[in-house]
Amino acid sequence: MSTDPLVVFTPSGKRGHFAVGTPVLTAARQLGVDLDSVCGGRGICSKCQIAPSYGEFSKHGVTAREGALSEWNAVEERYDQKRGLKPGRRLGCQATVQGDIVIDVPAESQVHRQVVRKAASNRVIQMDPATRLYFVEVDEPDMHEPTGDLERLERALKAQWDIPAIRADLSLLSKLQPVLRKGKWQVTVALHKSHTDTIARVVEIWPGLHEGGLFGLAIDLGSTTVAAHLTDLETGAVTASAGIMNPQIRFGEDLMSRVSYSMMNPGGDKEMTRAVREAIDTLAVEVAKEGGIDPTLIVEVVFVCNPVMHHLLLGIDPVELGQAPFALATSESLSLDARDLDLTSINTRARTYILPCIAGHVGADAAAVALSEEPGKSDDLVLIIDVGTNAEILLGDKSHVLACSSPTGPAFEGAQISSGQRAAPGAIEAIRIDPVTKEPRFRVIGCELWSDEDGFDAAIAGSGITGICGSGIIEAVAELRIAGLMDENGLLGSAEAAGTPRMVAEGRTHSYLVHDSTDAGGPRITVTQGDIRAIQLAKSALYAGARLLMDQRGVDKVDRIVLAGAFGAHISNLHAMVLGMIPDAHLDKVTSAGNAAGTGARIALCNVESRREIERVVRQITKVETAIEPKFQEHFVAANAIPHKTAAFPELAQVVTLPSPNFNAGSGGGGGGRRRRRG
Amino acid sequence: MSTDPLVVFTPSGKRGHFAVGTPVLTAARQLGVDLDSVCGGRGICSKCQIAPSYGEFSKHGVTAREGALSEWNAVEERYDQKRGLKPGRRLGCQATVQGDIVIDVPAESQVHRQVVRKAASNRVIQMDPATRLYFVEVDEPDMHEPTGDLERLERALKAQWDIPAIRADLSLLSKLQPVLRKGKWQVTVALHKSHTDTIARVVEIWPGLHEGGLFGLAIDLGSTTVAAHLTDLETGAVTASAGIMNPQIRFGEDLMSRVSYSMMNPGGDKEMTRAVREAIDTLAVEVAKEGGIDPTLIVEVVFVCNPVMHHLLLGIDPVELGQAPFALATSESLSLDARDLDLTSINTRARTYILPCIAGHVGADAAAVALSEEPGKSDDLVLIIDVGTNAEILLGDKSHVLACSSPTGPAFEGAQISSGQRAAPGAIEAIRIDPVTKEPRFRVIGCELWSDEDGFDAAIAGSGITGICGSGIIEAVAELRIAGLMDENGLLGSAEAAGTPRMVAEGRTHSYLVHDSTDAGGPRITVTQGDIRAIQLAKSALYAGARLLMDQRGVDKVDRIVLAGAFGAHISNLHAMVLGMIPDAHLDKVTSAGNAAGTGARIALCNVESRREIERVVRQITKVETAIEPKFQEHFVAANAIPHKTAAFPELAQVVTLPSPNFNAGSGGGGGGRRRRRG
Repeated sequence: MSTDPLVVFTPSGKRGHFAVGTPVLTAARQLGVDLDSVCGGRGICSKCQIAPSYGEFSKHGVTAREGALSEWNAVEERYDQKRGLKPGRRLGCQATVQGDIVIDVPAESQVHRQVVRKAASNRVIQMDPATRLYFVEVDEPDMHEPTGDLERLERALKAQWDIPAIRADLSLLSKLQPVLRKGKWQVTVALHKSHTDTIARVVEIWPGLHEGGLFGLAIDLGSTTVAAHLTDLETGAVTASAGIMNPQIRFGEDLMSRVSYSMMNPGGDKEMTRAVREAIDTLAVEVAKEGGIDPTLIVEVVFVCNPVMHHLLLGIDPVELGQAPFALATSESLSLDARDLDLTSINTRARTYILPCIAGHVGADAAAVALSEEPGKSDDLVLIIDVGTNAEILLGDKSHVLACSSPTGPAFEGAQISSGQRAAPGAIEAIRIDPVTKEPRFRVIGCELWSDEDGFDAAIAGSGITGICGSGIIEAVAELRIAGLMDENGLLGSAEAAGTPRMVAEGRTHSYLVHDSTDAGGPRITVTQGDIRAIQLAKSALYAGARLLMDQRGVDKVDRIVLAGAFGAHISNLHAMVLGMIPDAHLDKVTSAGNAAGTGARIALCNVESRREIERVVRQITKVETAIEPKFQEHFVAANAIPHKTAAFPELAQVVTLPSPNFNAGSGGGGGGRRRRRG
Repeated sequence: MSTDPLVVFTPSGKRGHFAVGTPVLTAARQLGVDLDSVCGGRGICSKCQIAPSYGEFSKHGVTAREGALSEWNAVEERYDQKRGLKPGRRLGCQATVQGDIVIDVPAESQVHRQVVRKAASNRVIQMDPATRLYFVEVDEPDMHEPTGDLERLERALKAQWDIPAIRADLSLLSKLQPVLRKGKWQVTVALHKSHTDTIARVVEIWPGLHEGGLFGLAIDLGSTTVAAHLTDLETGAVTASAGIMNPQIRFGEDLMSRVSYSMMNPGGDKEMTRAVREAIDTLAVEVAKEGGIDPTLIVEVVFVCNPVMHHLLLGIDPVELGQAPFALATSESLSLDARDLDLTSINTRARTYILPCIAGHVGADAAAVALSEEPGKSDDLVLIIDVGTNAEILLGDKSHVLACSSPTGPAFEGAQISSGQRAAPGAIEAIRIDPVTKEPRFRVIGCELWSDEDGFDAAIAGSGITGICGSGIIEAVAELRIAGLMDENGLLGSAEAAGTPRMVAEGRTHSYLVHDSTDAGGPRITVTQGDIRAIQLAKSALYAGARLLMDQRGVDKVDRIVLAGAFGAHISNLHAMVLGMIPDAHLDKVTSAGNAAGTGARIALCNVESRREIERVVRQITKVETAIEPKFQEHFVAANAIPHKTAAFPELAQVVTLPSPNFNAGSGGGGGGRRRRRG
């Protein structure tokens, strides 16, 4: 056995014998221990901090004594005075091995550290971003051996960092020479190493050691809203988030109306492309400001979006997506320069990655959900629903994954609802109707109190009560059914039939009055028969999509359901199931994944290998086209009703003691709305 | 032996037995015979024309009878009626083998046809352009197997043309869908296959068969002029050429004054970059117009230029090139999008290739000369001199090649000469001085007659006699020496000493009067003492560079000399040697290569593998930096004199019978000018 000291690294447990005097960083590299270093062991970046442990460590078989590492040295002293080192920390490139020792690599010193996602699930993202910093010392030019500065930078990166080859665009070349000289031939470069290219791109170069960090944007480009998450590419932390309305809304509320706009207006697609690119550029500046960084430190952008947004972002006329066979111009992932998308406020050499599309109706957003929720790795059969203007639906397990998209329309987001509004302060987001008194109580966004609690009026004085948002309208419709104010066909009863003056006649139908502040100049908020029809259409489309995938898979039930989307995070699972939005399942088997598409974008941003993974996964997903499946229409029609669900929901037991109303017996007036087939 | 018919292809001599009914194109492909086809054998492109030979062909051992190929068919009939087929021609994809046959592949049906260069040398360029046309049939989209149109195009190119992978930028993606549908899923694509990338780029796409051809530009970007050669990428023919003045001249006449301009004026480099890019874009439109093609059919551009032009073209401040150690930002070749250089009038997806630079003073133009003249393949020791504002000098043979650049200044181009002008109609380009009468006779550009021939005055009436261009001034100085009007130190004698009233006093020196038309309001054209000093400086720099390389190589003489450059094509070798511009060599060992840099650009344009070749060659060339070699200064000073050269030039025998004048004996006034060292 070696008489050299034994070094054990935790948490990895990697161990080896090293000659006295070996720097800890060198030992770590030789063992393949995940210990960061930007400056390559020059004692200036402090990324290689370690925590030596002294005393007995029987489980590692090491007894470490004081003196097992070299003395605290001048470089460490200077760094500690200048920036401060946490107690017990050493710089791995300065401390050398003197005896047996156990050395802990704290999470922040690991290159491939793991980041816990914000979302409900406790899965982690392993940091492995495409773009990283490298500090490098470049040889000065020599007239007798003339080579370009770029070629000497490349040689230095190869020798010092084992980077096989680099490329640099003209804008970088034009700043290369002054930066090298300003840094006295020591520079920090940001290199982008794509998962498909062995040549690394020089994204940025700074004189000396760059300490300003490196950032990426995960962008969830929705039909209605655009959300950007500013992510620290070294730590994985989301340092700021910002969202804006998609300015394309002025060309059409939903996807198909934007496709129509393009069809009807020559150049219309170009207008929409310009609008959304400008908005994203503005958003990038905004989120950088919020995060307190210079926008040019943003060197990577990942996009997830549906196919129509995808094409309009790329400058491709989406007209083919509006008609069978719904052909995408390209379905594969795209790696582009950010400036190709007119993102000019961030780093001019920033790279963008756009996840692959699954099919003409199932986009990169669905791919991102698959990356985040990993149905293909699930032991049990999981149904994943990302609710938005279109619903993306995935069904699968380890053996096989199916995907489709269902045109739910914007009702779930509060649009096309008489008192509807987007989720914003003042919007009713939750509602309960007392099954006996038929009186409502509700909560509005921006206030934790229910409307029947003390202090509610004072708490909402700022925003007032302005309308009902998506989650509110779903709860309202479900509660109307639970309270016996609406029948199985979705027909609201009269005040007499329902036994409450809150049912008010409006033409030939009735509405339920939720709140009336007209006396104080405020709105009168009702749920109308039209609102119920809109929700029925949306929920039928959603349900039919899920059922279609279940048919394809040959199952009648699923093991668990994951609701994704910003909306999925706020929806009440119980009410969704009462309404029949989703197939029946035990309530504790229905979970919310939060913004799974956004999470997928973040994963692709933080871990470059995940891009290869999702590209592989997408190729294996079976796509189901709802628009041409006759069974979709059948399921759609069948899903229109809102039956009682006693068996599944003991929580509703009190409700079923009430007689099941049928306000429309014999009249035939309660239909499935415009899309209902009549037999 | 096979009983199948024997097919012999000429000129390759490749042969094989093929089953009766095999299309000739198929047989050619199986044998690796170089037979073109854009449509892949669909009978629509007519690129695969062949010429079958009937009768006895003892040298090929084949006796072909009529009927050895299938009957003329409907496809050929239709093509012949529509476009016309030359007599005896068949379409290789239609004619099938029926018996033993000899088939000639005419030059225009060969993919890798050889193109004889215009230049004096009889070497050829083998056609193998990076960008080629491919006709392809693409599968229609299928909702059950959703893939993007781009992915189906890629699949088709792989199946039908064995293209491993493609990429397309956003501007192509945005037109892909309409073009595929317009072409009814038959399209022609222009694919760019780089020598460094296995993924082919889709540069352009047309519905159906594209018959408009494909073009490239070879651009010789000089300090003074910019020349563009429009080249047919299928045939290699130069279909048009055009040149313009480099607009950077307004920022500085020579390279160093442009570098100074950049140093003294913040943003000055950007101004010069903008100016030259705009000029090149304009030039591209002009040359396309002259060639009668749409500029968007230009899909490739190759640049050769000196290092300062190189950096200014790329948008890199050339300041480092103005001071030791003359570091290039990058020395390697560059493959860029044309739009990166603001070339927006040609195809938006055109690719540019810029040859590698050899060193900070020896640019891509010298690399192009090396590609054209191939010193590294020469059995004997060749000295190649590309004369321009800077002279690029190469010396070498199979064993080793050396290169340097020498700052000759613009005198050789007629600048800094009292009656100097650029080579244009009216400029004196050749001159002879009678050694007895001391009277001159001359020729001007635009007229074949000498000035003492009948009809000269009438022939030049249009242009007049306006000045002396570069080749004219060199001849004038040499002739003054030959005629005994100038001594070895370059001093002109007085009218008395020289014995001719054409020597006129001007201040303390004398000038030689070539032509005086002041009576008719025209110019008075003289060769002044200052002109002689300017030419002496230039020729000393040129000679010193060549000598420096000869020192490095350890030789006193070279086997042959090649004069390149537009100027080299017009210079009189005899006069150049009398003047001492170039080392002594037998006159029949001095040849002109014409615009070798331009030819190098054309080679790189027409043959993509030559790019790999020149990149390899450049890495092996030894660079010599004249600016830091003390011997350069020594040679420079020593080269100032203009001695008699009887031994080398029997043509001058008559001259040496004259006494060798020395108009300056004892005065010490004849010096090497401002750069001469005084001991």
